[in-house]
Amino acid sequence: MKHPEALARLIDALRALPGIGPKSAQRLAFRLLQERRAAARELAQALTHALEKVGRCRRCRMPAEGELCPLCASPAREASQLCVVESPADVIAVENSGAYRGRYFVLMGHLSPLDGIGPAELGLHELDLLLGEGVVKEVILATNSTVEGEATAHFISEMARARGLTATRIAQGVPFGGELGYVAGGTRPAGLAGRQSVV
Amino acid sequence: MKHPEALARLIDALRALPGIGPKSAQRLAFRLLQERRAAARELAQALTHALEKVGRCRRCRMPAEGELCPLCASPAREASQLCVVESPADVIAVENSGAYRGRYFVLMGHLSPLDGIGPAELGLHELDLLLGEGVVKEVILATNSTVEGEATAHFISEMARARGLTATRIAQGVPFGGELGYVAGGTRPAGLAGRQSVV
Repeated sequence: MKHPEALARLIDALRALPGIGPKSAQRLAFRLLQERRAAARELAQALTHALEKVGRCRRCRMPAEGELCPLCASPAREASQLCVVESPADVIAVENSGAYRGRYFVLMGHLSPLDGIGPAELGLHELDLLLGEGVVKEVILATNSTVEGEATAHFISEMARARGLTATRIAQGVPFGGELGYVAGGTRPAGLAGRQSVV
Repeated sequence: MKHPEALARLIDALRALPGIGPKSAQRLAFRLLQERRAAARELAQALTHALEKVGRCRRCRMPAEGELCPLCASPAREASQLCVVESPADVIAVENSGAYRGRYFVLMGHLSPLDGIGPAELGLHELDLLLGEGVVKEVILATNSTVEGEATAHFISEMARARGLTATRIAQGVPFGGELGYVAGGTRPAGLAGRQSVV
């Protein structure tokens, strides 16, 4: 059965979203055009508006309106610390922890040669220039604890070392509320290796 | 941490989609504005275009460009049979079966008084007028095999009976490839009650 042309186009556009397959796209299109017309109209407008207004922060690559994001523009943030993360969602996670007052650099991914993601795609040249400015003293590597995240952290730590800077990696161990028997394989050795005196 | 205004608005608009929570909306917004800008632009345009072009078929309530959907407009379809389904996706499922050559009526839901969905929301008045035209001879109830779907089917079968029409319900039983031990509770009694001679 053939859909009307405008509906078929909408289904195709929805399929291009991450995590949405052909069946979900069809169901979503029907919902948007029937029960959720007001929400659909607002989505179209919000998307167009955001595409116009939101770009990347020139310094840290976070989504930003204007040249710099609020974090990079703020004089209250400690400029000597730079926390390197994989995604904007990680910036929000670290900010919500309330434990960090420095600045960020957002890679927008991790090294993954098989997917064609190398240093250029992650903005590592820009990161190197930033490290060369002489303001950053410590690079905190907060990429994910995956094989790719570790490889990326290692690569950047070498860049920092070449600039004579300290590079640290966020601590790995059993998460708060986590049960020793249920954490992934590598967590236990990491937790043991990183053990600290309690007295 | 506060998002730029245009980004916050986009996240809110994405949250209004069915099945998308606050975290997914945030992740989706970042993806759309960073790696998928072309896809985002196409989605905004496809949505706007579809909202303009696609309405409901005057007769069966399917999404349609123009007054009638292709199925209702086609003289090749058997006008004496009317298959009542809950959603446009169900029309597509029945069409893909290739076993039906009649017309449809799409309820866009099922009776659910607690959610404020009664006969008016399902277009049952329009359905009654359609049944009163004298063209439809058989009403095939293909609502879902859920409590609400069954109640809706029962309600419509009473409407058909009042008009002196035959109402039939699609067969229930073990699905093709289904294992008897794994089907839901009510399926086995339904399969047994509907058993048919094989010789």
